[in-house]
Amino acid sequence: MKALPKSLKNAISALQGLPGLGEKSATRIAMYLLDSPQERVKEFCDALLKMKQSIRRCRDCFHLSDDDLCPVCSDPARDPQQICVVETTSDLLSIEQADFFKGRYHVLGGTLDPINNISPEDLTIPQLLDRIKRDRVKEIIIATNPTQQGEATAHYLVEVLKEFPVTVTRIGVGIPMGGDLKYIDPVTIRLALEARRSFP
Amino acid sequence: MKALPKSLKNAISALQGLPGLGEKSATRIAMYLLDSPQERVKEFCDALLKMKQSIRRCRDCFHLSDDDLCPVCSDPARDPQQICVVETTSDLLSIEQADFFKGRYHVLGGTLDPINNISPEDLTIPQLLDRIKRDRVKEIIIATNPTQQGEATAHYLVEVLKEFPVTVTRIGVGIPMGGDLKYIDPVTIRLALEARRSFP
Repeated sequence: MKALPKSLKNAISALQGLPGLGEKSATRIAMYLLDSPQERVKEFCDALLKMKQSIRRCRDCFHLSDDDLCPVCSDPARDPQQICVVETTSDLLSIEQADFFKGRYHVLGGTLDPINNISPEDLTIPQLLDRIKRDRVKEIIIATNPTQQGEATAHYLVEVLKEFPVTVTRIGVGIPMGGDLKYIDPVTIRLALEARRSFP
Repeated sequence: MKALPKSLKNAISALQGLPGLGEKSATRIAMYLLDSPQERVKEFCDALLKMKQSIRRCRDCFHLSDDDLCPVCSDPARDPQQICVVETTSDLLSIEQADFFKGRYHVLGGTLDPINNISPEDLTIPQLLDRIKRDRVKEIIIATNPTQQGEATAHYLVEVLKEFPVTVTRIGVGIPMGGDLKYIDPVTIRLALEARRSFP
């Protein structure tokens, strides 16, 4: 729009580059920042740049971390002998939000994908095997997503882990709470039926 | 959430402070920035800080501007003798988006509000009167919002402008395009009936 000053136009396009922000919300945020004190905008930018500089991968589990070890791996209350294997940090955060799991994690960094040349060595699978030996891990919960690639990765892990004295489990698949059978896909229905349990 | 590194947590709360962003979208944006190159994040912050430093009010119309005069006031193609009076810059941008008006603007900076002690001198009304004299303005289109305060401000302007040799008009009020009579409030219906026109 020609009536916008150039610097404002640039700020709006920078904001529009972020996921989930369209032109309207980007403009709204830019106008909000214009009305905020200079200090406030500087603090905002500092928070983003500091995060960018500080964040690395946890030495043990490859979760995001400010230090060598992430908040989970450096928490002595978390059981090092129970490891939940996830594809990405976002998956880890979803499980943490449920506030139920008390073990530790291992972030694979993706899924196996022969077509795109993603092999076990491109993921953190070798490091997972090292951890299992080092910490004498008792249980591995495979929480890759129930997609074709997530399933393939889970199957591969099950094969590899057969050589280790460790219990391997898979996160439950079925109808989500609040879900409605008439909108659930047939594969999930089949898996949910297979995973049926007697009433306790 | 305890599993989040501190710097990431800070970035998420900084993003959550922006209008329209909840925890989910703030987390999504933070993760996106983490995956972007450092340079990209720096450019993003530079765009915001530069805007903050550069933007001031246009000397003539009080629209946002990088220079003394805003893009509208410095455009010789825009008629200086037709001025559309709006409450805020956002209102100005909405009118610009319609890409129809070819005159210039005057941003009042709000509405008259005796309860909160906002008098004509707190708005840019004296500067508007100066402009009318200086540029020999022919038409003032009052485009304050059709709210109680916007109407009061419009009425005040009509009174003051009686002393000037200028045509004063009010932006049309009625049913918006795509609107549905059954959801329109009674006051708008009444105004729309009063504003009825013969078919051309």
